[in-house]
Amino acid sequence: MLPAAPVLAPVLGRAEAGFDASVGRLCDLLRIPSVSTKPDHAPEVRRAADWLVAELAALGFDASVRPTAGHPMVVAHHPGPGGPGGGDVPHILYYGHYDVQPPEPLELWDSPPFEPTIVEGPHGPRVVARGAVDDKGQVMTFLEAFRAWHAVHGTLPIRVTVLLEGEEETGSPSLMPFLRANVDELKADVCVITDTNSWTIDTPAITTRLRGLLYVEVTLHGPSHDLHSGLYGGAVLNPINALTRVLGQIHDEQGRVRFPGFYDGVREPSAEELAMWRELGFSEADFLAGVGLKTPAGEAGRSALERLWARPTCDVNGIWGGYTGAGAKTVIAAKASAKLSCRLVPGQDPDAVLAGLRAFLDERTPPDARWEIQSFGQSPGLQVPTDSPYLRAAMAGLGDVYTNRPVLIGSGGSIPVAGYIKDALGFDSIFVGFGLEDDRIHSPNEKFELKCLKNGILAHVAMLARFAELRR
Amino acid sequence: MLPAAPVLAPVLGRAEAGFDASVGRLCDLLRIPSVSTKPDHAPEVRRAADWLVAELAALGFDASVRPTAGHPMVVAHHPGPGGPGGGDVPHILYYGHYDVQPPEPLELWDSPPFEPTIVEGPHGPRVVARGAVDDKGQVMTFLEAFRAWHAVHGTLPIRVTVLLEGEEETGSPSLMPFLRANVDELKADVCVITDTNSWTIDTPAITTRLRGLLYVEVTLHGPSHDLHSGLYGGAVLNPINALTRVLGQIHDEQGRVRFPGFYDGVREPSAEELAMWRELGFSEADFLAGVGLKTPAGEAGRSALERLWARPTCDVNGIWGGYTGAGAKTVIAAKASAKLSCRLVPGQDPDAVLAGLRAFLDERTPPDARWEIQSFGQSPGLQVPTDSPYLRAAMAGLGDVYTNRPVLIGSGGSIPVAGYIKDALGFDSIFVGFGLEDDRIHSPNEKFELKCLKNGILAHVAMLARFAELRR
Repeated sequence: MLPAAPVLAPVLGRAEAGFDASVGRLCDLLRIPSVSTKPDHAPEVRRAADWLVAELAALGFDASVRPTAGHPMVVAHHPGPGGPGGGDVPHILYYGHYDVQPPEPLELWDSPPFEPTIVEGPHGPRVVARGAVDDKGQVMTFLEAFRAWHAVHGTLPIRVTVLLEGEEETGSPSLMPFLRANVDELKADVCVITDTNSWTIDTPAITTRLRGLLYVEVTLHGPSHDLHSGLYGGAVLNPINALTRVLGQIHDEQGRVRFPGFYDGVREPSAEELAMWRELGFSEADFLAGVGLKTPAGEAGRSALERLWARPTCDVNGIWGGYTGAGAKTVIAAKASAKLSCRLVPGQDPDAVLAGLRAFLDERTPPDARWEIQSFGQSPGLQVPTDSPYLRAAMAGLGDVYTNRPVLIGSGGSIPVAGYIKDALGFDSIFVGFGLEDDRIHSPNEKFELKCLKNGILAHVAMLARFAELRR
Repeated sequence: MLPAAPVLAPVLGRAEAGFDASVGRLCDLLRIPSVSTKPDHAPEVRRAADWLVAELAALGFDASVRPTAGHPMVVAHHPGPGGPGGGDVPHILYYGHYDVQPPEPLELWDSPPFEPTIVEGPHGPRVVARGAVDDKGQVMTFLEAFRAWHAVHGTLPIRVTVLLEGEEETGSPSLMPFLRANVDELKADVCVITDTNSWTIDTPAITTRLRGLLYVEVTLHGPSHDLHSGLYGGAVLNPINALTRVLGQIHDEQGRVRFPGFYDGVREPSAEELAMWRELGFSEADFLAGVGLKTPAGEAGRSALERLWARPTCDVNGIWGGYTGAGAKTVIAAKASAKLSCRLVPGQDPDAVLAGLRAFLDERTPPDARWEIQSFGQSPGLQVPTDSPYLRAAMAGLGDVYTNRPVLIGSGGSIPVAGYIKDALGFDSIFVGFGLEDDRIHSPNEKFELKCLKNGILAHVAMLARFAELRR
């Protein structure tokens, strides 16, 4: 039974009826090449911010483009049904980002990346463009939900703050300073982040676990200069051989990471979580087949979903040293380098993991060699409390518009923004998004199923109603 | 006591008297930028060949430029004292090369690489230019010795064939076909190769051991495409991690290579060799300090000279995979690659070593992965018979002009030409050269000490006399 059906039903109807126009507006936004990594695209990033401010202002928001040291933020406030200062209603911060990844390599696109194209797929029509799902399409799910509420009732059922970032694809350098500088303005009860996936196209999901990330570059220095392997080989330290020897020991025979203290604080998933994950019907064989593999890998005695969502990792993401051109060069390189990253889970302290990584390397330093270690940042793993009334309300809202029951899932990736918000503003986040695993984010021919766009809009319409029921 | 002193002494005197002119001719040759690796320099390579043919013809040689599929060979014949067809004298093939390495990086040269410059150093004047020692300066030691004999006696004391290659710095692709196509013309009793070093500037040396080389590139293929380390990390094969795990096992705790059968056929140096090497007074501490190290590395229980001259090795010469640019990218690469080379010693079969390397890799192939192995050629280790009369004659000739006693040494490097000559023509080679370890071959500011040039010329003059005593 829908909540406050006389209030909600016409909003859902309005969103349905206006869906073609919603698609048109998404396409307008997708035509703006707001590539945040390219300095010469800064005016386009700004144009996307201006476009969003205009849209939000038309829906009754007090919206503005806010400068940062990098690309600007879009901040918008809606007082909710009671008007400014009034009304005992929940206050939700909606986060998304309007910048996109570079489209290159262009030759692999079937249509120009900034000319959104509607293509028929197995799930019906989809829109193909850079940013179709990440994150412009997802941002439009809540923006169009606001529009439907505004059109039918002239207001929103709760108090809303919107924060849209223009630097997510460059690592959000300005986000934390901006949050810290605007704590009072951005305070809310909870944050809704729409930048994740459904479980399947018909099964909505809230992501309650995200892994954190620790990323370092290590270089092992040996001889003072490159040497001739004939004249020195066999009698001097070879840093590439030594690096492989050390990195080759990262995992033990059980696939566990050997850094001292690496598993300190790691919490086992609850029996309830494990039971939920089993019910998801995840096929490890299909997961592996999708990337050309068939043999499970990783930590022994764990299911694939445990390994991906609840266990920390260490992967070498890059390695280089010596001669890497065509043909043969008989050199002993003076140094060798690698990029390493650890995915972290809740309970692990990133500083302690980095210390353990350093200790692991130090214990294995060959004589006369030295390590150079550069950190590219770290974020802890995140677990959203599943007993929060906001999460329950969001689940209920999803249940209002999907036939399949919504599920709670994890993600192996990292979305540091929730941690920033918790640290700077003091409240939790709810990850509810409508992408699919095959949406090719960051790749050529990125797409968003129109069915997902519509379900996302309807779900946000319903979630707004469910949040409104949570009178404080 | 010098051999046939009345014959030899005036030739040595002539070489001494004409030394300034010898330096002038070397500089003329050094001004020709005969860089064999650069296709647009082919006319310069040809010009160097023509220059050498003219010099040899002026010394009574029947000399010609001989085409190959690549750069040409210079071949020249001198009948010796008896004239064509006559005279029961030894017949020696002199090998050298007239092509040079590219001079880049140019900005690191103190003077232009093809404008030979005389600079004062701790050993007196030296000539600085690309090719100063490798191998134009070394070639001129025997060419100027021929000139002195020709000037004093109107002929040479033995029969001589000269073979000068223009592709040594590109791996000698035309050499073996040329030798095989001209077996009868190039037949001699022994080959003298002047492309190695003295032991010290005052201690001449004949190199009796050279290591062979096996060079491969290996790639470990895993997933069908690059993966996001958040969404896949911990549950799929990471080819870089796997490659380091395999390569990190190449050496056991004793520094021995683990490839099956790797040490099959390896011969221990004789007690005589070991005794000679001990007498050389080699300082491992100085050797290591020269490259910024202080701790001996390599196979346990072996001296540094054994490790360098008499023991096989496996070095990783290059490694690459995944993201190697600036900053962080959270990728699991689809593949990872390395270049590996083994220095081989006499008795090892390169084919068997390659088979052992393949077996080592295959035994460690992770599930779902596959190796791609590309060979860049192989040559066996070489040991020159120390009981050859030619080698004894060469030692005697060196002893005639140096105060210090000549020594027999090894080299950790590889000079495949001796193996080619043995295979195609059926006779041995003697490595006698006059370079120093600090001559910076292949590097900016390559130099040749004029003292070494002169000693080389005088030594070749004396060796010719000693060879002439070996009536067949």
